[in-house]
Amino acid sequence: MKSPELFQSPFSGQPSRTTGGGRRSSLSIASDAFVFFSGAVAALLLVWTFSTFSNPQTTQPQPNPNLITHASNPKPEPKPFLPSVSDDVCAKNFDGLNFHDDPPDPNFYDDPTFGYTIDTKISNWDEKRKEWLKQHPSFGSGAEERVVMVSGSQSGPCTNPIGDHLLLRFYKNKVDYCRRHGYDIVYNQVLLHPQMHTFWAKIPAVRAVMLAHPEAEWIWWVDSDAAFTDMDFKLPLQRYKNHNFVVHGWPKLIYEKKSWTSLNAGVFLIRNSQWALDFMDVWSGMGPQTPNYEKWGEVLRETCKDKAFPESDDQTGLVYLLLKEKEKWGDKVYVEGEYYFEGYWLEIVETLENITEKYNNIERGVRRLRRRHGEKVSESYAALWEEYLKDAGYGKFSWRRPFITHFTGCQPCSGKHNQMYSGQSCWDAMRKVLNFADNQVLRNYGFVHRDLLDSGSVSPLPFDYPA
Amino acid sequence: MKSPELFQSPFSGQPSRTTGGGRRSSLSIASDAFVFFSGAVAALLLVWTFSTFSNPQTTQPQPNPNLITHASNPKPEPKPFLPSVSDDVCAKNFDGLNFHDDPPDPNFYDDPTFGYTIDTKISNWDEKRKEWLKQHPSFGSGAEERVVMVSGSQSGPCTNPIGDHLLLRFYKNKVDYCRRHGYDIVYNQVLLHPQMHTFWAKIPAVRAVMLAHPEAEWIWWVDSDAAFTDMDFKLPLQRYKNHNFVVHGWPKLIYEKKSWTSLNAGVFLIRNSQWALDFMDVWSGMGPQTPNYEKWGEVLRETCKDKAFPESDDQTGLVYLLLKEKEKWGDKVYVEGEYYFEGYWLEIVETLENITEKYNNIERGVRRLRRRHGEKVSESYAALWEEYLKDAGYGKFSWRRPFITHFTGCQPCSGKHNQMYSGQSCWDAMRKVLNFADNQVLRNYGFVHRDLLDSGSVSPLPFDYPA
Repeated sequence: MKSPELFQSPFSGQPSRTTGGGRRSSLSIASDAFVFFSGAVAALLLVWTFSTFSNPQTTQPQPNPNLITHASNPKPEPKPFLPSVSDDVCAKNFDGLNFHDDPPDPNFYDDPTFGYTIDTKISNWDEKRKEWLKQHPSFGSGAEERVVMVSGSQSGPCTNPIGDHLLLRFYKNKVDYCRRHGYDIVYNQVLLHPQMHTFWAKIPAVRAVMLAHPEAEWIWWVDSDAAFTDMDFKLPLQRYKNHNFVVHGWPKLIYEKKSWTSLNAGVFLIRNSQWALDFMDVWSGMGPQTPNYEKWGEVLRETCKDKAFPESDDQTGLVYLLLKEKEKWGDKVYVEGEYYFEGYWLEIVETLENITEKYNNIERGVRRLRRRHGEKVSESYAALWEEYLKDAGYGKFSWRRPFITHFTGCQPCSGKHNQMYSGQSCWDAMRKVLNFADNQVLRNYGFVHRDLLDSGSVSPLPFDYPA
Repeated sequence: MKSPELFQSPFSGQPSRTTGGGRRSSLSIASDAFVFFSGAVAALLLVWTFSTFSNPQTTQPQPNPNLITHASNPKPEPKPFLPSVSDDVCAKNFDGLNFHDDPPDPNFYDDPTFGYTIDTKISNWDEKRKEWLKQHPSFGSGAEERVVMVSGSQSGPCTNPIGDHLLLRFYKNKVDYCRRHGYDIVYNQVLLHPQMHTFWAKIPAVRAVMLAHPEAEWIWWVDSDAAFTDMDFKLPLQRYKNHNFVVHGWPKLIYEKKSWTSLNAGVFLIRNSQWALDFMDVWSGMGPQTPNYEKWGEVLRETCKDKAFPESDDQTGLVYLLLKEKEKWGDKVYVEGEYYFEGYWLEIVETLENITEKYNNIERGVRRLRRRHGEKVSESYAALWEEYLKDAGYGKFSWRRPFITHFTGCQPCSGKHNQMYSGQSCWDAMRKVLNFADNQVLRNYGFVHRDLLDSGSVSPLPFDYPA
């Protein structure tokens, strides 16, 4: 027999329990879809999908308070919701961190002058963090390598009809990466300073996360339009042990060309430190919330002649600080150019099939790389892989999976894009890149997207794939 | 001076670097917005938002391979990317779990007959899991309370213009809850069995997650249209120690009324066990991938006379199994009716202001509840709160925050909804509920939505709020 959704738009997903059957409504939905979505997206209409409405109720019974009985176990324990000792033990055992203990001894949170807003001055933060870590010993071990990722997008729906769908997928990609490596991720959808809009919004967000997560040594901002395309690769934190800020860039372009695109401020790693608070004070001092915003626009344009627009922006501001206050900040800023700390999608997207082929060839020759395993121990296979990736290199022309692919010049939410290429080429590339990444995740669940442009279809992986 | 976006649609977010200035495009964007969105959503146009395109580059320089130098630290360590010993130590210390070790000794993943698809038979799973945990001792402690959350939505964009935006916010809400409690979350956007669509899609997803996460005792399915509205509340796992499956429902309605809405299959907790695999085999045996799908539709309609549509569905199937195979399954199924394991939004949404007021009044009287703290130790404050919530009760008419608010009858993605209410009332309620939840998260970052209907605006919280 045919299953119901054969008669429906994939978008309706299930027979309507509320509009009297899916057939009629599916037609209008399908036609709407074609109005909304251009060619490549329309292709998605052909694949199996499922409704986000997985619960077929039209009404819900009003539970009668007298009906508080159970299918079995009729006597619930008294006060079942008070955390039991075992809860406490497990909270500690659960992941080695004690979520249940905040000693009464005062710490910086008890200081009335302490605040999360960008304009609140904080001093001696390093000592305050150390003190907090002493108070919370379970967070002490491994603190030096603890990373919290931060990303975000606007609080309202996108104008690009597929914009929010793409944002959802970019966010899932980040959560997948964080789950694999045990990182926390915070997604921010509000302006923590009402005037610090667009690319300025990340600074108050990163600052607030820093203060809410004294257990983390590093805060890692990753733009919403950047995707992890090597789920195995980890930040080489040892390399940054003498630095407080890491950004992708090209020193020659910074110090000789003085170009505003000599680095990319869309992805950065910043150490949870007093240095970072001071740096963000100075950096955000060029922002739209200051009386000097307009003046800074002029100064930055004088400094970086190729700057494409008059408004002061965080990226040119960063270049300015490296050029003009190098002695003050430069020594603690690591300009990473050796691997795709973030990489330009146009340079990357065409290489993905070749990279997949290279990796598959290696796996065919090495059984232990093909071994199935629990997702949580994936890092042990990443370590094995390194041995076979030695010759791959890291950046452009490398056949190593690029770490982060950044859709610089494409705006998934607004739908705007660099006139160098079409919007469609942006959205197609995003789908391809996100499916390439998703295949590294799905692998641990036994499935794969055979076609990187087909987000809806997966096939089960046979045993010992890809042998 | 005025900041740029005063001249722009909040949706454009930043001056266009690609279409020659934001002013003209912003007008068309704004008019589009009004075509797409009805009144309440249009209100979002008035709030500050920021573009998802936080990186103002129009073009990216092609890094010259000869430029691989650094602002400082010119000599990177050799093989910087091979996991160092310190990485290994930290991986273990990081959260007490050793992500780096998968011993060579064979386990179930090495068995060629083992597979992730719904039709792969698996036996002795409990022993196999135990064996895996023995191989991976760092995952052993706390394993009994380890939970992996699973949710998902369709692989393509929604037909409802704000559908994907709402899905993004529902997903963020789940990630926030999981971060606070140290749970992993897996979001699935593909059909792991091409014929198991709509509400059937979750079963193969839950099964695959179970097999990919032997370290987890419980898999927790939560529909994409359900939001955590009490970020503090934790599943009372001790209560379920003798059960393998937990679902929200009302036994009298199951066993006497035989109603298909006597329980809600949109949220369930299932123990990672052979029982679960067997149960899912039988449960999914009523699904669209089987030759008996049509027949099952008839059987379920005969069993539950109030079933609203002919197709066999997972929820009525669950009621059927409780009614007809109680002795086989019923004793291990815990029908939770005492708290909002999931709750009907229409019953909840109007109570949120009153609940907020109640909680604020309690906090005004108890300094230690108002104490600021790191997000990671929030559970210790949740424990303190219990003392003051004793009299609140848990379900309907309670002034305790409802645990999970479920938008039964509203389809955020398709835009369909129960004719009992307007679509607008669904989308407004979702915004209100998500902001209510978000306030519990933002609190740890120093901010609050003063107006639950205003997703875009937050205010900083003063010290000692709400005293």
